[in-house]
Amino acid sequence: MDRLFRPRSIALVGASDRSIWSVSAFDNLKRAGFTGRVVPVNPKGGVIHGVEAATSIGAIGEPIDAALLMVPEAVMHDTLHDLKAAGVGGAVILSAGFAETGEEGVQRQAALSATAREAGIRILGPNCLGFANMADGAPIWTTPLRRPMPNPTLAVVSQSGALASQMEQFAYQQRIALTHMISTGNEADVTIADAIEYLAHRSEARAIALFLETVRNPAAFARAVEAANAAGKAVVVLKVGTSEAAAAAAQAHTGSLVGDDRVFDALCRRLGVVRVKSLEELVVTADIIGRIGKVERPGLAMMAMSGGLCEIAVDQAEVDDLPLPALAPETLAALREALPSYATPNNPLDTTGAAMTQPNLIAEAMRIVSNDPAIGLVSFVFDAPAKADARGFAARFIDAVGQGIAKAATPGLMFSHTFSPVSGEGRGMADAAGVAYSGGGLRHALTAISHLFRWSEAQPQALDLNRASGVRPQIGDGERGVLDYLASHGVPVIPGAVATSADEAVETARGFGGPAVLKIASPDIPHKTEVGGVALRLSGDEAVAQAYADIRARVEAAKPEARIDGVIVSPMRSGGVELFVGTLKDPQWGPAIAVGLGGVFVEALKDTSLRLLPITEADALEMMDELRGKALLDGFRGAAAVDRAAAARAIVAIGDAALALGSDLVSLEVNPLLADGERIEALDGLVIWEDNDEHA
Amino acid sequence: MDRLFRPRSIALVGASDRSIWSVSAFDNLKRAGFTGRVVPVNPKGGVIHGVEAATSIGAIGEPIDAALLMVPEAVMHDTLHDLKAAGVGGAVILSAGFAETGEEGVQRQAALSATAREAGIRILGPNCLGFANMADGAPIWTTPLRRPMPNPTLAVVSQSGALASQMEQFAYQQRIALTHMISTGNEADVTIADAIEYLAHRSEARAIALFLETVRNPAAFARAVEAANAAGKAVVVLKVGTSEAAAAAAQAHTGSLVGDDRVFDALCRRLGVVRVKSLEELVVTADIIGRIGKVERPGLAMMAMSGGLCEIAVDQAEVDDLPLPALAPETLAALREALPSYATPNNPLDTTGAAMTQPNLIAEAMRIVSNDPAIGLVSFVFDAPAKADARGFAARFIDAVGQGIAKAATPGLMFSHTFSPVSGEGRGMADAAGVAYSGGGLRHALTAISHLFRWSEAQPQALDLNRASGVRPQIGDGERGVLDYLASHGVPVIPGAVATSADEAVETARGFGGPAVLKIASPDIPHKTEVGGVALRLSGDEAVAQAYADIRARVEAAKPEARIDGVIVSPMRSGGVELFVGTLKDPQWGPAIAVGLGGVFVEALKDTSLRLLPITEADALEMMDELRGKALLDGFRGAAAVDRAAAARAIVAIGDAALALGSDLVSLEVNPLLADGERIEALDGLVIWEDNDEHA
Repeated sequence: MDRLFRPRSIALVGASDRSIWSVSAFDNLKRAGFTGRVVPVNPKGGVIHGVEAATSIGAIGEPIDAALLMVPEAVMHDTLHDLKAAGVGGAVILSAGFAETGEEGVQRQAALSATAREAGIRILGPNCLGFANMADGAPIWTTPLRRPMPNPTLAVVSQSGALASQMEQFAYQQRIALTHMISTGNEADVTIADAIEYLAHRSEARAIALFLETVRNPAAFARAVEAANAAGKAVVVLKVGTSEAAAAAAQAHTGSLVGDDRVFDALCRRLGVVRVKSLEELVVTADIIGRIGKVERPGLAMMAMSGGLCEIAVDQAEVDDLPLPALAPETLAALREALPSYATPNNPLDTTGAAMTQPNLIAEAMRIVSNDPAIGLVSFVFDAPAKADARGFAARFIDAVGQGIAKAATPGLMFSHTFSPVSGEGRGMADAAGVAYSGGGLRHALTAISHLFRWSEAQPQALDLNRASGVRPQIGDGERGVLDYLASHGVPVIPGAVATSADEAVETARGFGGPAVLKIASPDIPHKTEVGGVALRLSGDEAVAQAYADIRARVEAAKPEARIDGVIVSPMRSGGVELFVGTLKDPQWGPAIAVGLGGVFVEALKDTSLRLLPITEADALEMMDELRGKALLDGFRGAAAVDRAAAARAIVAIGDAALALGSDLVSLEVNPLLADGERIEALDGLVIWEDNDEHA
Repeated sequence: MDRLFRPRSIALVGASDRSIWSVSAFDNLKRAGFTGRVVPVNPKGGVIHGVEAATSIGAIGEPIDAALLMVPEAVMHDTLHDLKAAGVGGAVILSAGFAETGEEGVQRQAALSATAREAGIRILGPNCLGFANMADGAPIWTTPLRRPMPNPTLAVVSQSGALASQMEQFAYQQRIALTHMISTGNEADVTIADAIEYLAHRSEARAIALFLETVRNPAAFARAVEAANAAGKAVVVLKVGTSEAAAAAAQAHTGSLVGDDRVFDALCRRLGVVRVKSLEELVVTADIIGRIGKVERPGLAMMAMSGGLCEIAVDQAEVDDLPLPALAPETLAALREALPSYATPNNPLDTTGAAMTQPNLIAEAMRIVSNDPAIGLVSFVFDAPAKADARGFAARFIDAVGQGIAKAATPGLMFSHTFSPVSGEGRGMADAAGVAYSGGGLRHALTAISHLFRWSEAQPQALDLNRASGVRPQIGDGERGVLDYLASHGVPVIPGAVATSADEAVETARGFGGPAVLKIASPDIPHKTEVGGVALRLSGDEAVAQAYADIRARVEAAKPEARIDGVIVSPMRSGGVELFVGTLKDPQWGPAIAVGLGGVFVEALKDTSLRLLPITEADALEMMDELRGKALLDGFRGAAAVDRAAAARAIVAIGDAALALGSDLVSLEVNPLLADGERIEALDGLVIWEDNDEHA
């Protein structure tokens, strides 16, 4: 991989002074200060880009690490064989005409992959713009690049070359220096996962910004993210396909499947990946996380020279679910002592314009708030100037912020009021003062900080995607089959026993106490109510005995041929809150579990929370807390509050029970899981297998 | 007002070469090309800002239109009297130390207002940065301003001077030229409403961007917005206080009340005001709406040279509820004919990079999609270059977009991929090609376009805030009082009649058909169930007669002293969907109405829609459609679908019934309004008056 991504010699195959791609690639190498050999290759030979061209790869006469292939699809096969013969390590294929064009293209691409594998050559593309290794001054990139900037902190990976270019342009405008930019295109060989894994080990970048249309190798993707996590690098992703329409568009566009978007959200949470919603948010968030690194606790202290901006911040923080904690009394007292009377100690802190004349007080205020027990990050809103100002005011101010950050007990960040390009001088001033600075503006900075906080708290868990298709465990037929299976895995289920006589039914009901429910037990009667096979709210021995006789008689009359195991006796439950707990199987990411409030809530409001399996009790508690209707769990209208810990244990057990059913399981549903104070009970369960054979 | 906002002569009172405010104000006038007289005033006289200073206003010796007051609060009273004596028309008061500082400051400000009124001088401020009339080259602004740009299209009004400055800076970075910028500060005289009304009549701007902390004169604000609407100018507002915490912060900061935020949302909808959530969104949205104007239908056609960006657009459009309609078959056929085979006709349309070589095709494609019956706006994503490019590629491309827009049947817009500063050359190129261009990037542009579409469709209604506190209409006491009142205003209510004998009860119940409900009718028994005064689900004459006797006996035993009017007989209702309909009285904006799904939905999920009263049936239909749980209205789980038109009529009638109760009404609640297919009935009603006297 290093020969491809850190080449010391490069061939431009199909080079021509008339090709803007070829010209750009050559110019980029020059501008990046590439020190190795660059050989244009063209059958006609001559001088190309001012350099003597080789007529073929073979004619170069010395080993070449990587080649950029700008040749038609038709000669690709032969070209790869030439590369093999010349001992080239990797190739960037700009050419289009493969999987993105339809079924025939898919076959051409498969052939290309096979040839490359056989030739032992790593391929980036086809249908990509290349990569730019700025850290080593070795770009193979086919549109004009800007000169590398100092102190690179961010790597960019994108399945779309056009968007990678946009990100590079945007990062430049913000003076965010890139270590690498990799456009993976059709991924005939090197996938997004390979790129992430490579960057995890090689790049100086502390964050990886990723534009994603589809994940072609889920297991490798999960491993790559884990490698990035292990290296302390945040992975921030903009993935399209959040809307159904986008899924359709992506299919038209890339010919690839787009998995269910909510499952991808669950995956991100699982792996500790930060998911964002726009290109600006992608770059700004990855940049800020990269500059700050993990914080010890979520809690932002913000200072600005504008009360209005402080108010906007409070509203925005609520949208982002960003903690802007109230300061502790000791912090407020210390601020009152340190600051002149004009400032009202508060978070956010409006320092008023008067702060301009006393920047040193700002540094002291930053130190004070950073010691507040609720604060994990201090910030100041100030625009780095476009040009070093004559009177040196901005530089003095930024120095003061730098002193504040140096003295602070937490990391610190300075960001602009609104979105604002960052000049080289502005970035230089901030760097010199030791100030992490973002020109993203209040809105993007606060969103990024909320991501930073969640990322800092995340505890990524490994993902096992190699679940074997095991033998299906035995689940009993009939009414109690799934419930008994659940019970055997530690899920609390409603008690129930089959009675074969009225006396036995009475005995059993007495044992449960309270009113009883009777249901016919028969493998041949799926719809029990229709044949009069159910009786509810039975109080007292007499009622139970009578119901037993009635049910037997009615069923006998309606379905004389049915096998009858007896009558199931259960306690009658009323009140409590119904939960819905169900698992699903995602084709890419495997089993996941959804929790919602049962009944109309889950059906009409789609109010559910989703996680990949397995989950922990902490996950289950979090899932309940995400429900919009969670107030129902807290003793709504005088009902008993649900014992959330007990409910969480039941949810975890349901997930584990689903996993134990192996990879043929499509879904295990418990609906409802009745939660009544401390009593949590599965009242009904349903199993759906791959071949649509249902066990209810 | 014109003497203040369009002065031909200006005095800078308290001018000094050592004051950055004074220096800035003077420099701004010079830079804006102010052609009138500018006189520094300072008791010491001498030369200030290179100009002979007057020792007092009176010493100037000729009439002055407007004065900037940079004098301490202590001498403000005398200064205003000097101004009066000199015949000055208006004053901008930079000085702080008034209502923003607390109770004493409020009193000082009241005295200031009184003095100014008495002196016949209009005042902007105190505690403001001034105003900048760029259209007439007449700024009185106390921090450095940029030079005015040509073709101004936007006006800015802000209660925060610091944020006005930020907006000016941001607008400049986007090369959005301002006609006016007005910072209203503490609004001792000129309020935000006055500023809007002035701009509605005077400014060339087609949109007004507004930063708002609080509205001090609701009726004037509503009138000002109506004036702007009448002049075809959009009002776009960023109002803080969406979160409760922000409301607290605003109180600390401005000492003014912040009304309920959801009511302000309803107000914006009522008046056709566009509400946004960040400073960037404020400026970008107002700019785009100003450039495009009303569109004939909501429906965006988007083209970009990147499939990835098209996919992001689809996701973003879903978030913004922005219609990106599928193109009609004829449109697709026309596109197929016009475009080379590389492009798949679609919306958004990925023109691929190949469009770069054939810009004329883009113009043709824009013409074609603009004629699609679902499209109201065509757009192309392209970054205006920072500098006129040597090869003229960008200019040629922008010209082609301009030709497309010229040929299009709808307005057209070009916007950048990501947030991107706009250079003077870039703006000039777009202007020259007749291209409306925004550097706001995909995310902000799509959000702005969704606002544009809603604004274009909005039908603002006037707001009557001068509702007299009328005589309270007579509402009968007891169980049926509110229901009978509702019925008299055309609200369908559950039938019910008071029976004074068992026979009468039986007769009445028979008349309704089906099972009945009996309730004791007594003005002395608020909690009927507690005394056994209610009986449900009574089927048949015998059950009704028995229940009548039982209720009378139980109540007689429990409350022998209570006056008894009889027993109310009503039909028993079951099934259907419970709606909640309630009105509230906002201290600023008057009566409003909330609609939600009843029961746990409204209580646990706060799933309601809010409008100011009165409303139309169209409003009521829209309100139901906004409910997250609206699926319940559409025949959920086999229930009959609610007749939404009938429900809307009932909701409108409830609103009108509330209005008829006059301004002492705090709330009229109907809970539930039972909706069962075509039958809509109020089952219970509650009236709350200003003095907390409840009628249930």
